[in-house]
Formats: sequence, C-alpha cells, structure tokens
Amino acid sequence: MNNFVFQNTTKLIFGKGQIAKLASELPEGKKILVTFGGGSVKANGVYDQVKAALAGFDHIEFWGIEPNPKVETLRKAVEICKSESVEFILAVGGGSTLDGSKLIAAAAKIQEDAWELVRNPKLYGGTLPFASVMTLPATGSEMNRGAVISNIATGEKYAFYNTYPVFSILDPETTFSLPPFQVACGLADTFVHIMEQYLTDTGISPLMDRWAEGVLSTVVEVAPKVRENQHDYDAMATYMLSATMGLNGFVAMGVPQDWATHMIGHEITALAGITHGQTLVVVLPAVMNVMRAEKGRKIAQYGERVWGIKEGTLDERIDKTIVATEEFFRSLGLAVRLSELNLGEEIVEEIVNRFKERGTLLGENSNIDYKLVEEILRQRL
Amino acid sequence: MNNFVFQNTTKLIFGKGQIAKLASELPEGKKILVTFGGGSVKANGVYDQVKAALAGFDHIEFWGIEPNPKVETLRKAVEICKSESVEFILAVGGGSTLDGSKLIAAAAKIQEDAWELVRNPKLYGGTLPFASVMTLPATGSEMNRGAVISNIATGEKYAFYNTYPVFSILDPETTFSLPPFQVACGLADTFVHIMEQYLTDTGISPLMDRWAEGVLSTVVEVAPKVRENQHDYDAMATYMLSATMGLNGFVAMGVPQDWATHMIGHEITALAGITHGQTLVVVLPAVMNVMRAEKGRKIAQYGERVWGIKEGTLDERIDKTIVATEEFFRSLGLAVRLSELNLGEEIVEEIVNRFKERGTLLGENSNIDYKLVEEILRQRL
Repeated sequence: MNNFVFQNTTKLIFGKGQIAKLASELPEGKKILVTFGGGSVKANGVYDQVKAALAGFDHIEFWGIEPNPKVETLRKAVEICKSESVEFILAVGGGSTLDGSKLIAAAAKIQEDAWELVRNPKLYGGTLPFASVMTLPATGSEMNRGAVISNIATGEKYAFYNTYPVFSILDPETTFSLPPFQVACGLADTFVHIMEQYLTDTGISPLMDRWAEGVLSTVVEVAPKVRENQHDYDAMATYMLSATMGLNGFVAMGVPQDWATHMIGHEITALAGITHGQTLVVVLPAVMNVMRAEKGRKIAQYGERVWGIKEGTLDERIDKTIVATEEFFRSLGLAVRLSELNLGEEIVEEIVNRFKERGTLLGENSNIDYKLVEEILRQRL
Repeated sequence: MNNFVFQNTTKLIFGKGQIAKLASELPEGKKILVTFGGGSVKANGVYDQVKAALAGFDHIEFWGIEPNPKVETLRKAVEICKSESVEFILAVGGGSTLDGSKLIAAAAKIQEDAWELVRNPKLYGGTLPFASVMTLPATGSEMNRGAVISNIATGEKYAFYNTYPVFSILDPETTFSLPPFQVACGLADTFVHIMEQYLTDTGISPLMDRWAEGVLSTVVEVAPKVRENQHDYDAMATYMLSATMGLNGFVAMGVPQDWATHMIGHEITALAGITHGQTLVVVLPAVMNVMRAEKGRKIAQYGERVWGIKEGTLDERIDKTIVATEEFFRSLGLAVRLSELNLGEEIVEEIVNRFKERGTLLGENSNIDYKLVEEILRQRL
C-alpha cells in the first residue's frame, strides 16, 4: 500500500425531501449566487423546492451553465460575484453546473481571468464557499474538489481543482425525469471512474480492490433496473450514491491511478462535442487491450470478481473480460466504436497530434505516449 | 435506502514515516496536552518519533490512560487542561488513549464532572480540538466521534460522542510490536464493527452491502498473514486501514444498525474486565442464532458472499454461516465461549438483571429485551 493523505469534508445530505434542508444549511445573512444549467430543474420541480427553501435568503440567480461548462459563460458569473459582492455559491443541477460553479467560486477571488486560473493553479487565491443540489449522478463533483472546464475559443478541456463543497444535497427523486441517454452516460461515467482508480496492478491494496469491485458490481446489478424504470426509488438511489462514491477519494486510498481513458475521452468531447460518459466507453476497452502487459493481472482479477470469468489462460481471460466490459457498455444503449458516432481517421489524427505536441504521457506509469494513444484510438474505429 | 447525512472531517495521514508530519499538522503557538497509555510507545520507538516532531511545541505529557479508559484517570487530565490552559490534545496510543482523550477534550470545556457529561450529552459545551497518532488498529476511534468510557466506582461502561479528530496519523510499522492477543482482538473488533452495521436485512443498500462484505472478506483474507508475521508491512497496513474503515461511517450510509453484540459485550468487559474484542466474538454467534428469524436472509447473503456457502435450506445455510464465523474467531486464537473465559451463570444473571432494570431494548428493531439477552448469553456458556 502506498502512503496517502485522505480528507473529504463535504457534508452529504441524501434522500427524499432533503432539498428543504437548504434552509438550515445555507449561511444566514450572506449574499448567495444560485447557479443553474439550461432549465430542466424548472420542469422537474427542483427549482420550486429550491426557491421555497431560499425564501428569506438574499440571492441572485445565474442561468445557462451548459454541458461541458465553458469559461466564456462562467466569466459572466464571475463578474456578478465581483460586482454584487457574492459570498456563497449554490449550484443546482448536474456535474457541469457544479463544475462551472467551482471555477466561478475561485475566479471570484482573483484579478486574473478564469481561464488563466484553469491553466495555472498557482493563481489560486482561495474560494467563495460553495455547495450543491446535485440532480444528475455521474461526475462525483458533489463530493470532490475537481471540475472539468472547456474553452470554446481554443477547443480545449482541462481539469481544475478547488476545495470540497461545503455540503451537497442529493434527492434520488430528482433523477426520475432525466433523459435516459444522460442516465446511461452517468452509469458509464461512474463505472469508468472506478476503473481509473482500480485497473492498475494487483496486490497494492486488497481492501481498496474489494471496495472498487463492490461499486463496479453494484453498478452492473443496478443498471438494468435503472434502465427499466427510472421511478424505482431504491434503484435510482443506489445509482446516485454509487456515482458519488465513485469519485470522492474513498476507493483511491493508497493506490495508483490511471486516468488515460479520461484524458483521451476529454479530447473527443473537446473536438466533437460527444457527451463525456459516451467517450469513455469507446476508449476504455482499447486501453485495457493495449496495456494488457502491465494491467493483465488486474484485468483478470476484475474479470473473475465482477464478471465471474475464471476459465482459460491469462490472455483468454483478459479477452473475455474486455468483451464483457464492452457488452455491458452496449447494454446501456451506448455506442462503443468511434464509427458509431460518425467519427473516423480525422479525429484520431487530430488527437494524436495534440498529445504529440504536448508531449503528455498518460497512465499510472506515465508510459502511454502519442503512439500508444494512436494504437488505442485505431482499435476503436 | 434510508435517508442519511454523512460527514467525516478527519484528515487521515497513513503510511510509513508519517509521524514526522506532526510538526506540520499541529497548530503553532498552542499549548498541547499529549496523552499516552501505559508506556509501550517508549519500547516501540513511537515516543521518540513523537517527541522529535514536537520539538518547538509547548506541550505537557499525560501518562496512564488504561485499557477501557476510566473516568477516574481522565478527571486528572481534565484538571491539567483547565489549570494549564491547554488548547489542543494529541493522543498517542490505541483506542483507549484516544477515547479517553475525546472525553478529556470535551470535559475541559465545562464546569460539571466528566462522568456527568458521559451520562448526560446535553452538558456538552464544545471541545478542545484533538488529534491522534493511532498505534493499535481496532476501535476506529481515529476517524469517528465515538468513545467508550468506564467507571470503576459504578462498574459501568458507556459510549460518549465528541466531534471528529482534526487529524489522525497511522503508521503500520507502529503495529509490528503489538502483543498478538491485542492484534487478534483488533481483527475481531473490526470484523464485528462491520457486522453491526451490516447484519440486519437485505436489499436496503446493495452498495453498502458490497462495501461491508468487502471489508469482511479483506479481514478474513489478511488475518492469517497478520498472525503469521506481524512485520509484513502490507498485511499490517491492510489490517490497520480495515479497522479505520470499519467504524468511520463509510459503510453505514442509509442502512439500519444493530449494536446488540457490543451492548452485551460491554457488560462483560465492565463486570469481568475481559478485552473488548474478545467479548464480541463470544456474543455474536448467539445474536445471529437467536435473531435468525429477522436476520436470516442477510446471514445467508453474508454466508454466500464472504464464506461461499451456497448449499442447503435457508436454515442449513444460516447454521453453516454461524459455524464459519465462530471458526474464524477461533482461528484468531480467541475464546468463543464464556466458559473458556472462566465465566458462567453468575455473570449471565448479573447482565440480564442490568438490562431488566434499565429496560433497554437492543438491536436494529429495538426488540432484544432482557429475556432475549439471557437466551443469547446462555447459548454461549
């Protein structure tokens, strides 16, 4: 086991009717910026619940944080924070609204432009405290420090880190009306988040392995129930909590992490606008295949414990496990090949060039260079 | 899944050589009370590491917090806190030292006696901040709010709740020299902590079930390695982290909890001075047996997923699972019957009388009365 430091201070408030607790959780007497996405919270009743709880709080609404939140939009909210002396930010919506709000909260504390802050963490000068009502389980943003921010002008997409949300309220009933494609991508995102923190080598932390396998098995078990009936409270609650646990540091204690699939997937989103979870399921099977020399033992362990694959040589078990993983992604109704997304040679070349220019090395051993990225992407044409 | 609120703010600093980080984690310019147990930290080098890190910090040592920390001892430390204007407490040792320090930290903030505070949580008036260097993995005290405090005068033992430790440092190397009996009791304590939060009914949270089963399976797998070689760093690290995860709220999200085994076990400790973990393994098999009507489905799920027991009727599988659990406890070198501890009818009668007088109802459904306590204990004679 590697040495590690773990601390996650977010207060997680989970369950039916919990949005009403905003009234007791929000700081009294502070000016609050409430951030929203495109408006689905008005259709599903979340907006009304939030407004009822906010009665008596001095607050401003900011609308329009889009999927893959764009710095161009967020800058407008930063200006409001500065001009209106905002003291607290409440994000209401999915991971994009919350991610965008994490950047708004930090950019409000500095003179420099928000994108400069994304590109240069040394500019970080503290943050406005922020919290969330999270309605789209996927990113885990409700209980972690991370955000992913896009820049339209440059076609770039990068991670940004702030502190933890003060609190996050998750009511599984808010997910009942989500578009099925978003739910499928959320299940996929959750699954791949765990894989990025798990699929390295065996024997590093038997305890974290069991936990990661537990979340993976749970997602596999609950996915058909969720897809069959989005009004099944227990199924949606299990999906929602799995998404939070997938990326809040709990399964990452003392183990190495990969994240190659995410880094490559981000480029597909940045260049072709494909939804994040969808990009991940296209990429992951080839990362498993191309990196089988170093990941093989862990792939076999995962195959046995999550999929019950026990027969055959190591290579045969790895092959079967990759197939099982790909079939699971397909069972979610997602595309698993670039061609199914009408993407081809062009985007592969563009992405490979980007990694070549940057000289980035991906993976838990920092050995996935642009040539391996090309091999990975060509296997998914 | 039940509604829940989860927040655990402790900073967990885990691994080799981490005790040196005390120097950067302790608050500068504050007067610190450093609490210790009986002196084993002087033999294993922990004391020297702590003192090296404390150079430059204004601190007072307090020695002698015993196993099952007694309020009679803790009162002396409370007096020192008050007379010396102590501002921060650092506990160095096992769960007893830390538990005792949690009470010291809170009792230092009020006028009333420390035992009154244990018996009446309404007297709680805040706490001195406290942290730990935890050297005996068992209680999970390093990452939870709980403490268990004894009173010699009354022969009582009760739980007390403070806030979370600011930070806890865990170096698995500090466990290399623990007495094997303490390690066995620590493994047993960890195992039963999980069981108390898991062995209720099925289907409440599939995710928490998987996590609980993951820790149980890990403890079962690592126990023989730990018992074979206490200098196996990875095995001791896995045991140590399992103990922390066993009782930090992570596996308790949205599920009911039992704690009957602990409540009965505490009485055995209070009356006969038997080590906590040892009492738990005596009691648990009978709780499983006596409560099989309501716990049966979960016992069978546990039997299948942790012990691979799949054959037979439900009752047969329950029987086999109880035997497997008892055999595991015996494999730790622990006694599993009261008679093996030279205890008999007398202590059973005394404990039953106590529960009868108090009218306490135990278990996740608050339906274990003194008659069922008697049935449970008689099965373990």
